[in-house]
Amino acid sequence: MKLPQSLRLDLPAWIGLFCEQLPKMLESPEDRMAVAISLSRQNVIHDSGGPFGALVVEREAGKVIAVGVNRVEPANCSSAHAEIMALSLAQQALASWNLDGAGRGELELVTSCEPCAMCLGAIPWSGVRSVLCGATKTDAEAAGFDEGDRPEGWVECLAARGIAVTRSVQREQAARVLNQYARNGRTIYSP
Amino acid sequence: MKLPQSLRLDLPAWIGLFCEQLPKMLESPEDRMAVAISLSRQNVIHDSGGPFGALVVEREAGKVIAVGVNRVEPANCSSAHAEIMALSLAQQALASWNLDGAGRGELELVTSCEPCAMCLGAIPWSGVRSVLCGATKTDAEAAGFDEGDRPEGWVECLAARGIAVTRSVQREQAARVLNQYARNGRTIYSP
Repeated sequence: MKLPQSLRLDLPAWIGLFCEQLPKMLESPEDRMAVAISLSRQNVIHDSGGPFGALVVEREAGKVIAVGVNRVEPANCSSAHAEIMALSLAQQALASWNLDGAGRGELELVTSCEPCAMCLGAIPWSGVRSVLCGATKTDAEAAGFDEGDRPEGWVECLAARGIAVTRSVQREQAARVLNQYARNGRTIYSP
Repeated sequence: MKLPQSLRLDLPAWIGLFCEQLPKMLESPEDRMAVAISLSRQNVIHDSGGPFGALVVEREAGKVIAVGVNRVEPANCSSAHAEIMALSLAQQALASWNLDGAGRGELELVTSCEPCAMCLGAIPWSGVRSVLCGATKTDAEAAGFDEGDRPEGWVECLAARGIAVTRSVQREQAARVLNQYARNGRTIYSP
């Protein structure tokens, strides 16, 4: 029996120019979130996936290690969420499955929307030491998205693992991208 | 700034011959689990990843759509768990992010060990309608693995989404692979 043996996930072509135009350092939480939100918005504008963006940065200096956008539909892959793309590409960049031991100090995940149950589960395995979230579960649900069944007290669960979470960074701007996507009647992923 | 834009995840080379030798149909839960366990064991023998295997089959007929093994270390990718590999490769095979709408009837995920928090979160997004699990969380933890923070009543959470879970299928045989891996002092992923 011949079965598939290889999976390839690409960021959209526009990401190349987007990254060339990024500042070298993203110092404040707001600067970092502005990039995540811009990724989410550009992904909608270019029709290259769902309205979600994420990046991995050095927590102290703010140097960008990798970016990601939602690629579920174009890649035919339900796990190709922005956070999984950014974390996986950061691990490729640093040639390690553990971002906590890859020689760049503490790394931070920045995501335009609070992680769904899958991405939440992926965070401790990735080795990032902190997470910045933009839009909330309430914002995602108001736009028709499903965040899945997350454990009660998920922020405390991550804290117990030494991962600090900051919520609602630039929340209004982040939620606006979700709202516009929903108002335009675009696909909501839900099998 | 140049950043990584592409991620490729491959199954190990031995999978080709393994799949050629699979029966056309895997009718019983035990037959299906035996393949998942065999994948987990072969992955250890070939030193091609962690002791976990999974597959996606047609729920009624038992035809295999895709298989997966843990590729965290060789792929430098903390989300390359066996379940994510099998689900993603099934989606590639059927050219759809939604396995519930891909024209093959209901599909089932078979995994040698109960899903961790990440893989559990991925299941509803994938479109599979049922899950067979071998080893339990207790077995995984006894071998030193961390299943993450799963919601209380995760089986009921999946049931509420129309996804049936059967646990402890061939549990003893599945747990044995984990135990042997741990006793041999192999890597336990934990950032």
